[in-house]
Amino acid sequence: MAHIELNNDDPGITGLLRYRPETGRALSELAEVLLRGDNTLSRGERELIASYVSTLNECRFCAGSHSAFAAAQLPEGMELVSAVCAAPDTAPISEKLRALLRVAAAVQRGGGSVTADDVAAARKAGADDVEIHDTVLIAAAFCMFNRYVDGLGTSVPADPAVYERRAAQIVEHGYR
Amino acid sequence: MAHIELNNDDPGITGLLRYRPETGRALSELAEVLLRGDNTLSRGERELIASYVSTLNECRFCAGSHSAFAAAQLPEGMELVSAVCAAPDTAPISEKLRALLRVAAAVQRGGGSVTADDVAAARKAGADDVEIHDTVLIAAAFCMFNRYVDGLGTSVPADPAVYERRAAQIVEHGYR
Repeated sequence: MAHIELNNDDPGITGLLRYRPETGRALSELAEVLLRGDNTLSRGERELIASYVSTLNECRFCAGSHSAFAAAQLPEGMELVSAVCAAPDTAPISEKLRALLRVAAAVQRGGGSVTADDVAAARKAGADDVEIHDTVLIAAAFCMFNRYVDGLGTSVPADPAVYERRAAQIVEHGYR
Repeated sequence: MAHIELNNDDPGITGLLRYRPETGRALSELAEVLLRGDNTLSRGERELIASYVSTLNECRFCAGSHSAFAAAQLPEGMELVSAVCAAPDTAPISEKLRALLRVAAAVQRGGGSVTADDVAAARKAGADDVEIHDTVLIAAAFCMFNRYVDGLGTSVPADPAVYERRAAQIVEHGYR
């Protein structure tokens, strides 16, 4: 049971967005722009960053959700998502994405943890400034979403099918 | 110098919002709804929560900004803001606000750190469910804003007058 009475049975963040539509609209808009707007990082790659940061923050609802959303939008599917979340340093991904995931992990620890060397390594691996910017903001945003979901003690479905159904909705209709 | 080329000299988050207006609009909208929308917590109290969490995250730009924004909207001004950020347990504030700041501090450590006891204490001190919800979300949002600002290494003005001028603009025109 959540820490507050949500007056609905929707799990994780979905119950919170329904509970407080004023903030829900702003949060949904942010997710849409960050994870689905025009970008040189694919939607699958951005969801992978979201899933990885949620895993580091031990947020089971967000990690389950965004792993499913990433898997649905990457040709290599859930096998790659699981490999990245378990061991990004050795997972079969581009060096650019690997360097961006290192930047994301630093952001997760704290803004001051990101070093000039982390950014230089991402740039050397082919990331441009907008990609570095968006990686930092996606990682920072999931430090918010994860705390929001767990800080209010929302429910976490155990059945993977729940996340897969939601993935199909997000891929087709988006976050708005 | 910031980690990326922003093509503007605006400090802290203001340079980032100008650099990437697509995400900037969504972030400004979120700040407006959270910190200035209709609410039983006053604008000054909400800015105080933002300032306190930014202090815990050691984000000098956000702490300087939101301390000034809180001081401009609380009758007791900067003296109270400084007292709260230094020692919320003994600062001269209501027991309700003190209990909400404890919830905010737990959120800053991580979503899973918020206990049912923290929430029960806030409720016992007079906080309702929406106030608890909004406190958690404000604290979570500043874990994003702080990481965004510091993760990209943006500049931090040393002159307090910069933050006071910006406070006057926010009080009059808001974040949009």
